[in-house]
Amino acid sequence: VAITQAEKKRIKTLYSKKGRKSAGQFAAEGIRLLEESLRSKYLPIIVYCADSELSDRGHQLVRDFKTMGVSVINLSSRDLSAITETESSQGLLGLFEIPDSKLENLTAKNGMILLLDNISDPGNVGTLFRSALAFGFEAVIMANESVDPYNSKVVRSSAGAVFGLPIISATGNEIFRFKKNNEFKLIVADIGGNDLCASITNIRKYVRLILALGSEAAGISASVASMADLKVRINHSKKVDSLNVAVAGSIIMKELYR
Amino acid sequence: VAITQAEKKRIKTLYSKKGRKSAGQFAAEGIRLLEESLRSKYLPIIVYCADSELSDRGHQLVRDFKTMGVSVINLSSRDLSAITETESSQGLLGLFEIPDSKLENLTAKNGMILLLDNISDPGNVGTLFRSALAFGFEAVIMANESVDPYNSKVVRSSAGAVFGLPIISATGNEIFRFKKNNEFKLIVADIGGNDLCASITNIRKYVRLILALGSEAAGISASVASMADLKVRINHSKKVDSLNVAVAGSIIMKELYR
Repeated sequence: VAITQAEKKRIKTLYSKKGRKSAGQFAAEGIRLLEESLRSKYLPIIVYCADSELSDRGHQLVRDFKTMGVSVINLSSRDLSAITETESSQGLLGLFEIPDSKLENLTAKNGMILLLDNISDPGNVGTLFRSALAFGFEAVIMANESVDPYNSKVVRSSAGAVFGLPIISATGNEIFRFKKNNEFKLIVADIGGNDLCASITNIRKYVRLILALGSEAAGISASVASMADLKVRINHSKKVDSLNVAVAGSIIMKELYR
Repeated sequence: VAITQAEKKRIKTLYSKKGRKSAGQFAAEGIRLLEESLRSKYLPIIVYCADSELSDRGHQLVRDFKTMGVSVINLSSRDLSAITETESSQGLLGLFEIPDSKLENLTAKNGMILLLDNISDPGNVGTLFRSALAFGFEAVIMANESVDPYNSKVVRSSAGAVFGLPIISATGNEIFRFKKNNEFKLIVADIGGNDLCASITNIRKYVRLILALGSEAAGISASVASMADLKVRINHSKKVDSLNVAVAGSIIMKELYR
């Protein structure tokens, strides 16, 4: 048999946070996500495919994985659909190791880091990963009760950016030490802050910066707010109270992109 | 009885596109959305509430609706939960009329209009409504196969912006006539366009403009692309192929906000 019942059962546990934590793995399906893993050289441990469902692009991707030394197991459509989560696997599922990243080991010491503080919506978090990679951010720190970055909805919304960025969970104390030891400035997106456009010349002088975004409902946590060197807001009409957090974060990151 | 079985059944049909179309109504639940309806003076036809579940803010909102002449029906928690869609109704559900908006009647003739062309993700569409209202856009046109703007996930993602903006479905021909008769310029977000920052001085000269966004997968439709006066792209790292459409649209709208 190409896949045992026990392995099927094990893969399905990867669709819960607890299962991912216990296995140290996550799953990603579909051509686009797996292409992005290849582009970022974040290779899967193993790829399951259903030959009969693969498009030409899918076949090419499977050949590329094999060339890179990745094990590819061909399954029946039925077996594959038993281990995929959505209807749109396009005949492909990859299993990936969750990196054991520690903030103290982060070498992105001359750039920009995104800090997500207590952001729970997987679509927003994935979108922020995508924008962070697009706008030259080098890593993402997840603090407090932010959603698991390897949640499959985060991975999908990231359009594969999850493979291209170090994503590091950290406590307030760890962030404090990292910021101090490496001389990062911390900017908080805050509705009561200074206008972004008026602040941009100053911000551009920061050699190393962390951009912190808090939850739409609760704002930034006290522990992160206490480290802020600058608070910025995006000017907008009074007809809305606030912007979506992924939009606000992306607008600020776009302004900082250099 | 405060609510009949027939009325419960009718309300539940509003959670499908077909049901909304047939009734000419949509539902919105929770304090925040209903507060936004009040702020925009887009009043519900009727409000159902469960007194026992209302917070102080919810009670105040109910009083405000009554003052405005809105019928408010008090239900048991059980009856209310039978007609709400999520766990987070906070004891409140409002029914609203879907406006019969026609592009030819749109009076926003001196401003900016957002055009969504074939955008199907409800979260992205709702987020774009929210950003459009935030950045001074006066109306939204929905073209081709875009998602129903009164889909409950769109309404939630809009954070109530759906109440503050005229939202108008239109065909390519209607858009063409409207654009011509009212001398609008049409800008398309396109990965092959001119750099947004380099184009902004020119764009600011446009008295009336339509910003068109297409689907991430298929891009802008041929009928809309053929009307473009200008195509713009947002400069970003080559590490990603493209930005999320709600992010890209919001970044452009923010640049145009005046």
